[in-house]
Amino acid sequence: MELLSSTKSFGGWLKRYKHESVSVKSEMTFAIYLPPQAETQSVPVLYWLSGLTCTDENFTQKAGAFRKAAELGLAIVCPDTSPRGTDYPNEHDSYDFGSGAGFYVNATVAPYSNTYHMYDYVVQELPKLVESHFPVTDKRSISGHSMGGHGALICALKNPDVYQSVSAFSPIVNPTQCPWGEKAFTGYLGEDRAVWTEWDATCLVETAEERLPLLIDQGEADNFLVEQLKPEALEAVCEKVGHPITLRRQPGYDHSYFFIASFIDEHLEFHSKALS
Amino acid sequence: MELLSSTKSFGGWLKRYKHESVSVKSEMTFAIYLPPQAETQSVPVLYWLSGLTCTDENFTQKAGAFRKAAELGLAIVCPDTSPRGTDYPNEHDSYDFGSGAGFYVNATVAPYSNTYHMYDYVVQELPKLVESHFPVTDKRSISGHSMGGHGALICALKNPDVYQSVSAFSPIVNPTQCPWGEKAFTGYLGEDRAVWTEWDATCLVETAEERLPLLIDQGEADNFLVEQLKPEALEAVCEKVGHPITLRRQPGYDHSYFFIASFIDEHLEFHSKALS
Repeated sequence: MELLSSTKSFGGWLKRYKHESVSVKSEMTFAIYLPPQAETQSVPVLYWLSGLTCTDENFTQKAGAFRKAAELGLAIVCPDTSPRGTDYPNEHDSYDFGSGAGFYVNATVAPYSNTYHMYDYVVQELPKLVESHFPVTDKRSISGHSMGGHGALICALKNPDVYQSVSAFSPIVNPTQCPWGEKAFTGYLGEDRAVWTEWDATCLVETAEERLPLLIDQGEADNFLVEQLKPEALEAVCEKVGHPITLRRQPGYDHSYFFIASFIDEHLEFHSKALS
Repeated sequence: MELLSSTKSFGGWLKRYKHESVSVKSEMTFAIYLPPQAETQSVPVLYWLSGLTCTDENFTQKAGAFRKAAELGLAIVCPDTSPRGTDYPNEHDSYDFGSGAGFYVNATVAPYSNTYHMYDYVVQELPKLVESHFPVTDKRSISGHSMGGHGALICALKNPDVYQSVSAFSPIVNPTQCPWGEKAFTGYLGEDRAVWTEWDATCLVETAEERLPLLIDQGEADNFLVEQLKPEALEAVCEKVGHPITLRRQPGYDHSYFFIASFIDEHLEFHSKALS
């Protein structure tokens, strides 16, 4: 791991690193916020997965999360949103596929199958790396925004033993049934829609054995609400199978980080409670 | 005024506008955060002046200030850092002169003297515009960062009747004696250093008749501290003439918005107290 920068914030430290990733076979950058408590004890970790076009920096610069993280003694780890450094056909042509749009799946379609293993990276490699290099416990929670909200939900639903809690802002809850998901899953997973369901929160809830409660905030003035996000699909299946969900529709809020900032403190408190 | 965007944040609204400015004779963009209280009453206003290369957006996206502003019932107005839309010799060649670097003075050297009147814009035109269009009182405070910290200090020292309070992060306190200031003042004000002193906080304190207390936060790990910022110059003259100053040297903090975010709440509380 190579330290890229180290910046003091709210008494703790925001550090950015790059490292050679085994799972995505390329150099990856991530950020970790270590609260002041990490100087004397091990602290639990919240993983934050960002949305389309983002890097590790959007959340760290715009979410305003470190004040509360410093108060609660919570580390926050922000990975990038895709492998970088390759140049596959169509990889850099659109904002919703390829670079910046890894969708937190393990791709099976060549050439993306060579490196686009963001699921393995986020669930396995990165926590192992973080836990071996920083003063953190093995208690993990996960959250994210939009594509990253989808990522947080599927990582937690597929691994309820790995995460103490999960939450999401404006998540793509049903990617098998919306344009963003259909484009990405076709490109990464192929034409067979049956295999897509393994990477769709609404489908996964239906067969989940452990019932990790879901906390979701969704802005009602979000431009992507009707066509892409469709939280009612997840809500309906949760109701059907009895999966606990708190879906808060927030009047007037859009899809931006101004929305996330407005409610991030409540998410951090939710995770901190589950982690302690 | 033309509304560019309107975004809900912490129960209030962040609005961006553009308008034809009389003082700088060009189209200017500014942002205003209206806290939830502004829906039912008039609220006081903090003016925030940004640093080199910034627009109205750096503070709104990175300072994490709206949570506390919403709590205190404080509007925040963020102007741009220079006129835009002209193409003078050298105007766009460097980060520390011309566009994005208006230094909050009234330029007297042609051609900058045609439009670079950021002082008039910030002290007179913008407050008049804001107070005639929004539910705000005529109580004003001012703060800023780096070049904007310099701006906040000179605006308040030259107009102690206009502002209830002033604070700054990492301000250029003595621009007549540092490379950034010397370059800008030569370009905007000419070679005669005697006229520069009208735009230098350390010089203005020496002759100030009203003694508005100064609150300044300065990171000790700030890369610009020794060569450009030199807070000890202001501190010394304040001590000499008995001008009240609280200069807080913050160990480990740098020049970034991560530093500003860490202490912005305390500045907002300081201003809110003076404004109420």
